[in-house]
Amino acid sequence: MQHTPALLDRGVKVVDLSAAYRLRDAKVYQAAYGHAHTDKGNLTAAVYGLPELFREQIRGASLVANPGCYPTGAALALSPFLRAGLIDTQSIIVNAASGASGAGREAKSHLMLVEAGNNFSAYGIGVHRHQPEIEQTLAQAAGREAPRVLFVPHLLPIERGILETIYATPAAQAGSLDTAGAQALLREAYKGERFVVVRDDAPTLRDVQRTNAVHINARVVGGRLVIIAAIDNLVKGASGQAIQNANLMLGLNEADGLS
Amino acid sequence: MQHTPALLDRGVKVVDLSAAYRLRDAKVYQAAYGHAHTDKGNLTAAVYGLPELFREQIRGASLVANPGCYPTGAALALSPFLRAGLIDTQSIIVNAASGASGAGREAKSHLMLVEAGNNFSAYGIGVHRHQPEIEQTLAQAAGREAPRVLFVPHLLPIERGILETIYATPAAQAGSLDTAGAQALLREAYKGERFVVVRDDAPTLRDVQRTNAVHINARVVGGRLVIIAAIDNLVKGASGQAIQNANLMLGLNEADGLS
Amino acid sequence: MQHTPALLDRGVKVVDLSAAYRLRDAKVYQAAYGHAHTDKGNLTAAVYGLPELFREQIRGASLVANPGCYPTGAALALSPFLRAGLIDTQSIIVNAASGASGAGREAKSHLMLVEAGNNFSAYGIGVHRHQPEIEQTLAQAAGREAPRVLFVPHLLPIERGILETIYATPAAQAGSLDTAGAQALLREAYKGERFVVVRDDAPTLRDVQRTNAVHINARVVGGRLVIIAAIDNLVKGASGQAIQNANLMLGLNEADGLS
Amino acid sequence: MQHTPALLDRGVKVVDLSAAYRLRDAKVYQAAYGHAHTDKGNLTAAVYGLPELFREQIRGASLVANPGCYPTGAALALSPFLRAGLIDTQSIIVNAASGASGAGREAKSHLMLVEAGNNFSAYGIGVHRHQPEIEQTLAQAAGREAPRVLFVPHLLPIERGILETIYATPAAQAGSLDTAGAQALLREAYKGERFVVVRDDAPTLRDVQRTNAVHINARVVGGRLVIIAAIDNLVKGASGQAIQNANLMLGLNEADGLS
Repeated sequence: MQHTPALLDRGVKVVDLSAAYRLRDAKVYQAAYGHAHTDKGNLTAAVYGLPELFREQIRGASLVANPGCYPTGAALALSPFLRAGLIDTQSIIVNAASGASGAGREAKSHLMLVEAGNNFSAYGIGVHRHQPEIEQTLAQAAGREAPRVLFVPHLLPIERGILETIYATPAAQAGSLDTAGAQALLREAYKGERFVVVRDDAPTLRDVQRTNAVHINARVVGGRLVIIAAIDNLVKGASGQAIQNANLMLGLNEADGLS
Repeated sequence: MQHTPALLDRGVKVVDLSAAYRLRDAKVYQAAYGHAHTDKGNLTAAVYGLPELFREQIRGASLVANPGCYPTGAALALSPFLRAGLIDTQSIIVNAASGASGAGREAKSHLMLVEAGNNFSAYGIGVHRHQPEIEQTLAQAAGREAPRVLFVPHLLPIERGILETIYATPAAQAGSLDTAGAQALLREAYKGERFVVVRDDAPTLRDVQRTNAVHINARVVGGRLVIIAAIDNLVKGASGQAIQNANLMLGLNEADGLS
Repeated sequence: MQHTPALLDRGVKVVDLSAAYRLRDAKVYQAAYGHAHTDKGNLTAAVYGLPELFREQIRGASLVANPGCYPTGAALALSPFLRAGLIDTQSIIVNAASGASGAGREAKSHLMLVEAGNNFSAYGIGVHRHQPEIEQTLAQAAGREAPRVLFVPHLLPIERGILETIYATPAAQAGSLDTAGAQALLREAYKGERFVVVRDDAPTLRDVQRTNAVHINARVVGGRLVIIAAIDNLVKGASGQAIQNANLMLGLNEADGLS
Repeated sequence: MQHTPALLDRGVKVVDLSAAYRLRDAKVYQAAYGHAHTDKGNLTAAVYGLPELFREQIRGASLVANPGCYPTGAALALSPFLRAGLIDTQSIIVNAASGASGAGREAKSHLMLVEAGNNFSAYGIGVHRHQPEIEQTLAQAAGREAPRVLFVPHLLPIERGILETIYATPAAQAGSLDTAGAQALLREAYKGERFVVVRDDAPTLRDVQRTNAVHINARVVGGRLVIIAAIDNLVKGASGQAIQNANLMLGLNEADGLS
């Protein structure tokens, strides 16, 4: 918020890697980040930079808010199902686990090798800042009213990678949604997408580390839709996606520098 | 099943660490383990060895089936809520993560350091053998008909420890179940229990590694009950609990060798 | 140095876990730690707390300087050979690797999981503070003049444990020192010692983690003596040895609280 | 040895990633690998594929023996000093540590996460197959008679990377070899080399992981030359170097596919 207005005034296109322009509602922003938004004008103009959902808006944007790491995987996994009206919008649980790089580079005791190594824990249960970001993106991408998400992140004892295990109840009108149908829906939704891989098996972090890819697998089991999505939080969840966005904004090949 | 009948015939008390006597229904056993049960007589007589739920039966038992690692934490976390009728029995999701020692000592490619290290993945989604074991224990402990559990385990890139993040929808009659009430229920249920710690914050694996303790925390958030339970899969989830059971069967101090 | 004099004045026996009283020469202390020693009187009276080498002095001591982690293993590995005059006192190289807990609990960038994990590096090459401590202990234990040690520590991407790979050239008078002779010398030197295990094979960190034991193996190969010594830096290398020392000072069983 | 002769007969250029053609003396090969060499003809013709030392021979070769992982770092670190006659050829110790991928992909108990994780140990002390390979390369690169190396490898609890901490005594004629002189010698030796980085500080594994680079630092301390060399055992220590060799053999840009 301190630098972006001046850059935009000079005609510079901006991909903002901070969280400043992700939440479109300044009140939601203030509730999540604990201080007032000081650049509300640009807040409205900013485009949420998830290319697989908002490619055309990104192409024409001057300011792109690069998505948070957790919301990237969750929004890509859930949007096709919400758009098709196949899941109960109030039933969504995003159980996620991230490598420690997601917590940044500042030296903190709980992130030291001697504390975080060999450990695993939940944090920010139901109150993490990415929860409203996921909800906003799902509402926008799916054109559904107010999907509600329970988001529970965990800290993995590794450097990088996010695995999200997502649960949702099929909507009454979903009829006989089964695994084959769920996978077919994902394949159709992401046909031709270079950075989305719909897999037959559940992805692992090794499938995506150091790549800009999202790997997704969906199945219906025990009466519930279970989607597993994996990304590298430092690439598709951060700088890789920023490059993808910049490529779109500048009319370059979307995958330049990412293959 | 091969050795236990002979031991029992000689009057030896047995704590069985295998899965042979955990599932009371031979048909459920066959479905889960892929072969017929060959000692159905003792199957009926076996007591499920979760001392905090079935202490009196264990004291008098000749054959105790030592619980599976995942079911131990899940059953202790959920039983008080089911017993009190506070959660929808069809809404339960057990999202769990275990250190690699849970997969045994046999050398397998996916368990090598070069494969399992720096990785994280789900497996056995909704089809793991511990799912019917959890359901059986919850039914027995809570006196409720057929609770249904969706169980999704994950493999952590560490040696030991299980963290279970459990989701359930409060029952209609639960009224205003809130975090304070959920925690109070757990505290009351496990008052005086030496190996159950009800915490104000979410437990981490480091809190329980190399101990026989279960650490539990419950909260109500976003309209859902979220319980986090942590154990060491090799102690409370295996040999530690076996010693606890043996102590009870032999009339010794329950904590002998475990403190 | 701030608290010990007052405690001693009150007649309290002290095991000092800091480095304050380890180096007997105040000038060497100042060179190593960068500030003057302010309690030189007690410096002279302090006993170096390595029980397997200085047990009788420890029993009668009021102030025991608990050894550094690296010097503990190195001094126990080398002392028998120096005492017997079997190695060239100027040829000693101590190549060591320690878990990150050796660097303390303060949050520092290079000790974070994201930096220290998956990494390995040497530090303090030939200038580490433990180098003069090792030299002093070897001189004292072996009654040899001025052994010179080249000490090169490394940082392991794990929590705990120190492995020292020690190289020395057999002395001219060592004659036909071979592996059998080297092992026999160690076995004789540590006969009856509860916390020293002379092994036939090279020890690993897992052999000693969470114990107060030192595991040692020596062999002569390629014309050189190679000794591997392993300890847990937080137990035999710190608090465990402090308890061992306190037990001796108080006339208790040396292993109380350590088995 | 089974496939290479047929390939060469067809005029195919071969970079052999196995150890079959690394040791030029069939007797040394048999002693190290435990079976007779069956393609002695090509053994003589094979060129040792360390481009920074033998680039011109590689360019013209039909068969290149891709070096072992440990020998790559050790030979590059030591050759300049041996060539200049600055170190005692009988004083060399190569203390090395490698990630577990160096042991291959076969599932073995001691390489499982539950065994190799959190551990560190020495193996093959003075008898590892790479010891004669290092000695042969040093003899060839330096034109010195029979340098003798004591090689002690260790197993790191990580996936990839080799750090070698190398000790040697300056030769009598080395005069006043100091750190500045040692570093200047390395800089001169590798001037213009794209994949060798002579650093002012000691390299860590993170500096080289997933790259084809060797990072080296030398210093003289305590009367000894200490060189630290780091590579990625899977890249410069294996497939990356194979590509570098193939590029040279085919007249391509040496760095193609490696930047």
